[in-house]
Amino acid sequence: MPNRLRITYQLTPLAGQTIEALCRAIALEQTVEMADDLIRSECIRDQIVGETLELDPLPDAPGSYRAVIAYQADTTAYAVPQLLNLLYGNISIKTNIRILGIDLPSTLLARWHGPNYGIAGIRSLTGVEGRALAMTALKPMGMSPNELAAMAGAVAEGECDIVKDDHGLADHPFCGFAERVARCQEAVALANQRTGHTTLYFPNISAPMEHLERHLQIAVDLGVKGVLVAPFLLGLDTVRYYAEHYDLVFTGHPAFSGTHFHDRRHGMTPGVLLGTLFRLIGCDISIYPNFGGRFAFTQDECHAINSALRGPLGELRPALPAPAGGMTLDRIPEMAQAYGSDAVYLIGSALLREDPDLTVATRRFMARINASFTNTGESRSHATGSRGAAR
Amino acid sequence: MPNRLRITYQLTPLAGQTIEALCRAIALEQTVEMADDLIRSECIRDQIVGETLELDPLPDAPGSYRAVIAYQADTTAYAVPQLLNLLYGNISIKTNIRILGIDLPSTLLARWHGPNYGIAGIRSLTGVEGRALAMTALKPMGMSPNELAAMAGAVAEGECDIVKDDHGLADHPFCGFAERVARCQEAVALANQRTGHTTLYFPNISAPMEHLERHLQIAVDLGVKGVLVAPFLLGLDTVRYYAEHYDLVFTGHPAFSGTHFHDRRHGMTPGVLLGTLFRLIGCDISIYPNFGGRFAFTQDECHAINSALRGPLGELRPALPAPAGGMTLDRIPEMAQAYGSDAVYLIGSALLREDPDLTVATRRFMARINASFTNTGESRSHATGSRGAAR
Repeated sequence: MPNRLRITYQLTPLAGQTIEALCRAIALEQTVEMADDLIRSECIRDQIVGETLELDPLPDAPGSYRAVIAYQADTTAYAVPQLLNLLYGNISIKTNIRILGIDLPSTLLARWHGPNYGIAGIRSLTGVEGRALAMTALKPMGMSPNELAAMAGAVAEGECDIVKDDHGLADHPFCGFAERVARCQEAVALANQRTGHTTLYFPNISAPMEHLERHLQIAVDLGVKGVLVAPFLLGLDTVRYYAEHYDLVFTGHPAFSGTHFHDRRHGMTPGVLLGTLFRLIGCDISIYPNFGGRFAFTQDECHAINSALRGPLGELRPALPAPAGGMTLDRIPEMAQAYGSDAVYLIGSALLREDPDLTVATRRFMARINASFTNTGESRSHATGSRGAAR
Repeated sequence: MPNRLRITYQLTPLAGQTIEALCRAIALEQTVEMADDLIRSECIRDQIVGETLELDPLPDAPGSYRAVIAYQADTTAYAVPQLLNLLYGNISIKTNIRILGIDLPSTLLARWHGPNYGIAGIRSLTGVEGRALAMTALKPMGMSPNELAAMAGAVAEGECDIVKDDHGLADHPFCGFAERVARCQEAVALANQRTGHTTLYFPNISAPMEHLERHLQIAVDLGVKGVLVAPFLLGLDTVRYYAEHYDLVFTGHPAFSGTHFHDRRHGMTPGVLLGTLFRLIGCDISIYPNFGGRFAFTQDECHAINSALRGPLGELRPALPAPAGGMTLDRIPEMAQAYGSDAVYLIGSALLREDPDLTVATRRFMARINASFTNTGESRSHATGSRGAAR
């Protein structure tokens, strides 16, 4: 039966529960939502209920198991909402069930377009080769469009590759979307003319449903090449839909997704959620909290996100990881070492602390990145996935 | 400053962190996303960053505090995605921060329509007065439209008030949405003609974005009066938008929201998420796992959801709680006692276990509910919120 998806779980049975019974309970709960003995059709029992394929104790987590359960692809209805439901709908409300991986058959992968640009496309848009990309953020909330535009211009003058809105910048009464995007895009274009470098401005799309399309169109009409979106704020399938309909670089932000990562025995891993799923719904870039920053991902978790974004996933283009969250310039050599060149290094407020003159601060940021990728061949050797897999 | 929303948090500082510093860190993180000393504008510091209003140790959770932080309503951009971000965007990725309550000013509450029908409207649609409503679910996934329709007809013949699709029934290759809804609605209408009772059929809406509107329209054209939606699968603002645009009873399902409830020190409480927020985005009915069922809410958490759904919330209509999740007929008197009549008692697969003849099983379900509300005046005395607050 090749047309099945396989979900790998970490399971920690509660007292009095066998691991086999727990696997069966999950396979039932996520499909038929009833006890085994109530299923009156053998066909449903065989075809709809999940089947446990593998089951092993996890050596590094005593009392926990790794289980693989397979489900017919048809049970997902080939749609993101029901895929999410099959993955983690009802069991999200249970306890000690963590999703470690999802393995989708080609029938499912072919259903989704994934990143519009991917690594190669973003390199082509920005003209950056052989090094990681640099990204910074416009903040704080409360600034006027003109003030934010001045920041965007200064950052572009310093030849940053991408400057995005903070993900809290919405269509506020004190800073409307249309005005902000027009001023920032204008300021960046002007600086680009002066420097000859390409800085891209990515506005944050965070509108109520009735204005999402209008906001995206405003951005496109102004010549914007990419946007920031938070799939958990907008809806994952909403992002998927707009990524399919707008030829833009989609940058995923993890806001509102964090309850999945709070307890390592429950939720989906960062690699599955911010890696596989965000790429599936069309994120060209996925922002996540870097290890050692002001949030709490481990280095292994970060690497798992990177692999999920950059490794093979059907015909979907590889995407760029964007480690962030309280990063400083000092950490760039370490990041270059750990992540290689196929990544976006996102440094936000540390840039504001670096120098009162944002252009000076940005130049220092860029110099640090350039140095990390010209001095050591080692960092460049980590680059993966930027070739091939174009579609 | 009346135009502020107040968020009440339960905070458990980590070692070496003062509670005051944690409050300030949250107030900054959720708005300006930068350290205090980097804010160059006094106006932004005063108007945009949240202000801690109250701070007390929590007597029943040693080491934890209850804090109230106020934010200008303008920071929400009066839109659901940015409201969710302000509430729990970045801090979801942190640890030991739980949202206990949200208090919205009238400027924000007036922005959203809330439930289309509410308690009074649903009573008027169904004709049910003086008792709780009965709901059951069509399952399992894998049945054909005709098989599900036969179940729907049998349940309607037994005079259940509402029969909904299981929330896993999507637009599957083995059971398409349009065919399923047509057959089920037809079967229920036929049974209603025979019995003279009104049973409503609520199909599950779980389509990819490009088909959501079409599916809702199919339902409306067939005379369907309500639907089932899972806001975390479709997107909370997506549900809000369609609830504003379709004059249907919206029934919220908690699928995929459960990571909020896994650790009582982190996430949003069930009352905030499945109560206040689901009502805000337009849920007329909110399904949640009842205490003592196969999921793990406490009785206090259930009561908090009920209060959030039925109590005052601006001009928004009160909504009906629907405790569910492995409920049995035996528990109806206890539920009547605990929840009163302004609730929907959702019994799923237990009905299938009750009797091979689903009509017989449903009649027993209805008899049990009727008995619980005619024998004791006490149960009825719990009814709240069905009067007034119409808009």
